[in-house]
Amino acid sequence: MAVIKESKIQQGSSFMGYKATQKLNKLAENPIDLSVPGQITPERLNTYYGQACGFKLLYGTEKVTDEVMQALKELADEAHVLDKMERMQAGETVNYIENYPSENRPALHTATRDFFEHPQSSPKAKEAALLARQEVEKLTSFMAKIDIEKQFDEMVCIAIGGSDLGPRAHYYALEHLLKPKRKIHFISNVDPDDAAAVLDKVNLKRALVVVISKSGTTLETATNEEIARERFKKAGLNPKNHFIAVTMPETPMDNRERYLECFHLWDWIGGRYSTTSMCGGVMLSFAFGFEVYWELLKGAHDMDQAALEPDLKKNLPLLAALLGIWNHNFLHYPTLAIIPYAQALHRYPAHLQQLDMESNGKYIDQKGKFVDFETGPIIWGEPGTNAQHSFFQLLHQGTATVPIFMIGFKKTQHHADLLVEGTTSQEKLLANLFAQSLALAVGQHPDNPNKFFPGNRPTLILLGEQLTPYALGALLSFYENKVAFQGFLWEINSFDQEGVQLGKVLANKIIERFAAQRNKTTNKTPYPLGDAYLKHLESF
Amino acid sequence: MAVIKESKIQQGSSFMGYKATQKLNKLAENPIDLSVPGQITPERLNTYYGQACGFKLLYGTEKVTDEVMQALKELADEAHVLDKMERMQAGETVNYIENYPSENRPALHTATRDFFEHPQSSPKAKEAALLARQEVEKLTSFMAKIDIEKQFDEMVCIAIGGSDLGPRAHYYALEHLLKPKRKIHFISNVDPDDAAAVLDKVNLKRALVVVISKSGTTLETATNEEIARERFKKAGLNPKNHFIAVTMPETPMDNRERYLECFHLWDWIGGRYSTTSMCGGVMLSFAFGFEVYWELLKGAHDMDQAALEPDLKKNLPLLAALLGIWNHNFLHYPTLAIIPYAQALHRYPAHLQQLDMESNGKYIDQKGKFVDFETGPIIWGEPGTNAQHSFFQLLHQGTATVPIFMIGFKKTQHHADLLVEGTTSQEKLLANLFAQSLALAVGQHPDNPNKFFPGNRPTLILLGEQLTPYALGALLSFYENKVAFQGFLWEINSFDQEGVQLGKVLANKIIERFAAQRNKTTNKTPYPLGDAYLKHLESF
Repeated sequence: MAVIKESKIQQGSSFMGYKATQKLNKLAENPIDLSVPGQITPERLNTYYGQACGFKLLYGTEKVTDEVMQALKELADEAHVLDKMERMQAGETVNYIENYPSENRPALHTATRDFFEHPQSSPKAKEAALLARQEVEKLTSFMAKIDIEKQFDEMVCIAIGGSDLGPRAHYYALEHLLKPKRKIHFISNVDPDDAAAVLDKVNLKRALVVVISKSGTTLETATNEEIARERFKKAGLNPKNHFIAVTMPETPMDNRERYLECFHLWDWIGGRYSTTSMCGGVMLSFAFGFEVYWELLKGAHDMDQAALEPDLKKNLPLLAALLGIWNHNFLHYPTLAIIPYAQALHRYPAHLQQLDMESNGKYIDQKGKFVDFETGPIIWGEPGTNAQHSFFQLLHQGTATVPIFMIGFKKTQHHADLLVEGTTSQEKLLANLFAQSLALAVGQHPDNPNKFFPGNRPTLILLGEQLTPYALGALLSFYENKVAFQGFLWEINSFDQEGVQLGKVLANKIIERFAAQRNKTTNKTPYPLGDAYLKHLESF
Repeated sequence: MAVIKESKIQQGSSFMGYKATQKLNKLAENPIDLSVPGQITPERLNTYYGQACGFKLLYGTEKVTDEVMQALKELADEAHVLDKMERMQAGETVNYIENYPSENRPALHTATRDFFEHPQSSPKAKEAALLARQEVEKLTSFMAKIDIEKQFDEMVCIAIGGSDLGPRAHYYALEHLLKPKRKIHFISNVDPDDAAAVLDKVNLKRALVVVISKSGTTLETATNEEIARERFKKAGLNPKNHFIAVTMPETPMDNRERYLECFHLWDWIGGRYSTTSMCGGVMLSFAFGFEVYWELLKGAHDMDQAALEPDLKKNLPLLAALLGIWNHNFLHYPTLAIIPYAQALHRYPAHLQQLDMESNGKYIDQKGKFVDFETGPIIWGEPGTNAQHSFFQLLHQGTATVPIFMIGFKKTQHHADLLVEGTTSQEKLLANLFAQSLALAVGQHPDNPNKFFPGNRPTLILLGEQLTPYALGALLSFYENKVAFQGFLWEINSFDQEGVQLGKVLANKIIERFAAQRNKTTNKTPYPLGDAYLKHLESF
């Protein structure tokens, strides 16, 4: 693009200079074809897997060979990613851009669950874990009081982005554990129809409202909080007795005059990495009981430990990160589909979409140069088997190749299943998961073009025993650390999100125009493009 | 890929041979750069739009010029797409692959709403509309009885794929119109946790269950129906008095012995095009009243008429189809993000994802040749402003360019809005929509790489007055016809879905293994790859 060619900013990267990158580029010229008879064998499926925290990661249907796996391991070594993971978890500054103003701080979300065996020993990580632990203690007291006083049965969470997507996806994942009589509601969109639809369903008298905003100033959240407070006032209730804040210390929301309680997080926890902090903790504890939240933390901590493992077959986040990079940077597949074969994970793809795309959708590396390769892929997906009846047509017979990350469990959550024609529904579900990975890999090649399936389309399967709170925590950390490893490999900053700023600035210019229209005043700053859009609205 | 090179099936297409294709390829070598100062002007935003059925389609932020638009119009003419649309709506056979066994029939979903002004005059379309109208009459009688007898307040819809995604997305879109006391539930996944979680919430005694399966034999739906029937029996209720079928005449489900009522659709309605048929009609009428469903049909019919308009500025489906093809086939953007700035449309991207990807994710054209260009893009998305706080980072500052289709409305659905700091939430919502389209196009180019936004990223905005049942119907038809036009331009069959078959065959082989394990018998057919996966399960 013209503007990039003309920019003073340099282009280049460490990634393209690694010896292993050269080797992988060479290997990618002639990758294996999974659809060739004899390529996928039982032996391959039996041996191509890693294992950690009760999960198996099966990669027999990825387009890799022993040689590719070896080169990927060399890439990891050359980029010193294990060292970088150590440093991240130890609390060193990893959220930075060299020589330019940037957030310049640690990314210590792992400290929000570093309460178990083998905790980090660095002073920074210990201090962070101590702070996080104090909030956990505050939460247990608060929840004990709630349980004793029995004044609240419902909770309304007002948040957007990472404070909403992560907690909400984890809530749905464990909804079968909801405590009797409790109800959870979510409001996030600035669209007033969101708040209106939700608040109509709430018994305000019996409801707690948790408002989550790290900065304490998020436009959508502040607006929705105002709408909710108005409702409480109209119902003759004092919001102060119903509203809780989750925010950083000393923001406008950190105010015990306005809130029943204020829980804290800190600038070293990014929104999309905040589910294990109080952003998720308050709601998850209210919904399921503290012990469920605690199990989630334990699972996440154990997978954080696995992310420090030098053995690739035990370090599932790194294994997945490398396979993803093979597909994206060497085989040049632009997207990744996330297909959980578990209905409880129906909003998990939306959480991973943010986690991955907001972390690694970056144009510059940590040295402030334009990258000369593709960073984070487009992440999308829906649960299986539903997705099979939706877009799998394109995955099988479209012109694009889409690598797929499948998640499955041996056992159901509910214990309600039924034998129909000799098998349970859970068995049918698993059969479909396995069948899809084989159909996509092997294909079918008759002379009738309508029955032709090219095959040679890669899948990766994460298989667990059951979707328990512990397993969910491990899944959360698995993907967080996968994303961090990819950032380390690309040498980009996975922990900031400068890309949201420009839209905010321009939105404020247009909001100013709406206000001026209403007040019949003139706009302070000219913005003819904004005016042109507003004119279109007049025609309705 | 090796298998394709070795196949006897030929490669080639009409699409690559069109004169307009050559012209567009030439133009795409040097497309305009939206980020160059002065490129996006108020005049451009004022004039680059089309209009139909109460909607405006604003394309000032697409990477097109008058010359590109002219060439796209020539492409449409050269491919005779208006003629093909006429023939589709008239009921000619459009679902076929030449010289090979195929479904070989019309795609007459437009007949399910051809009840208003200017109906089709061909005998086939008239006959189809008459059949559809008879079902509508049956539905009004059935619903009148329900309303009088007051025996049912709840409805459980059991369906998967198009019978589920479309009706469900349309239900959420109009949820604010839900009749007092009525409740709608959905079960789709073969995962038994789906049915278990939903059925726990239903008051069975007061519930109707609608089972939707065109073939009457869909595995997931049949299994979930069995689970639901068991529940009714256990509760001492006779399923016959609660269950309704929506299926084709003479399938195993078309059985008044087992169902309170059977509604029909026919083989000329594809699942993903079936929302306006009884697949959507039964639930939408129960939830909102018949008149809401009727308004939806009217909106859809009016947009079907707009799809026959020769004037591109009045034919919004064709206009959108051509702009999509410019982005996908000429600028080579592999995906399309759907971002509704309307919380009520939160599941609409999932519906459009199926509609588009299952229709146009095809490897062969209607002559049975492998295509030599890219067919249907990957469709994904989430509502704005939520998405801005999620993956918009990548859209602004990632290495991939993602064209975006935005949907917005001037007015809210609920009449609950609040002035906060001088503007309503609805104004803030619209300000964000407009601001994003400008930020993505124009970018920002300082020397600080962390603040650098390349810009030059295209968006398309569909703007309406309010999301009413009529507007929703028009939106439904807009996208259905857009997809059909793209299929016509590419000369592929947008109406079949052979790509789901291979997975079903392999799944059945694995289901057989689970059954054999349970019954301690041996498998009928050897399938060592399936056995290898089952062995992994044993380790848990």
